[in-house]
Amino acid sequence: MKAKVHVTLKRGVLDPQGKAIAHALQTLGFAGVEDIRVGKVIELQLTSADETAARAEVEAMCTKLLANTVIEDYAIELVA
Amino acid sequence: MKAKVHVTLKRGVLDPQGKAIAHALQTLGFAGVEDIRVGKVIELQLTSADETAARAEVEAMCTKLLANTVIEDYAIELVA
Repeated sequence: MKAKVHVTLKRGVLDPQGKAIAHALQTLGFAGVEDIRVGKVIELQLTSADETAARAEVEAMCTKLLANTVIEDYAIELVA
Repeated sequence: MKAKVHVTLKRGVLDPQGKAIAHALQTLGFAGVEDIRVGKVIELQLTSADETAARAEVEAMCTKLLANTVIEDYAIELVA
């Protein structure tokens, strides 16, 4: 089973990487950009074929390692 | 208009960040992980309301700055 974990900064948390990209795009002449936020996608190939077990395992991975839950939100998407 | 750009490493390109995460998860006791690949999501808030124009602009941003097309693939998703 495959899982995708989307890790994004919470609202209100400053995103310096996004600000840097927005500035670089403006320098390149792209004027129509208001705001940019950058997140991560972690694609996991799991041995488990059971959806409930896989979701619980990925949930545990997120809280323990993949996301910093103080400043980041995560969303889990399972692909059969 | 909002756009999401998914930037992922091409198949066959080594992903040291993914390998490091997989190793860390195994150290933490998660045995059911076969492979991990890490990508980026860039969320852009655009002033343009026209979908065709927005897509063309984001496409240009991708080739010029957001993705390294030698080793990375990108996918554009527009949200009204």
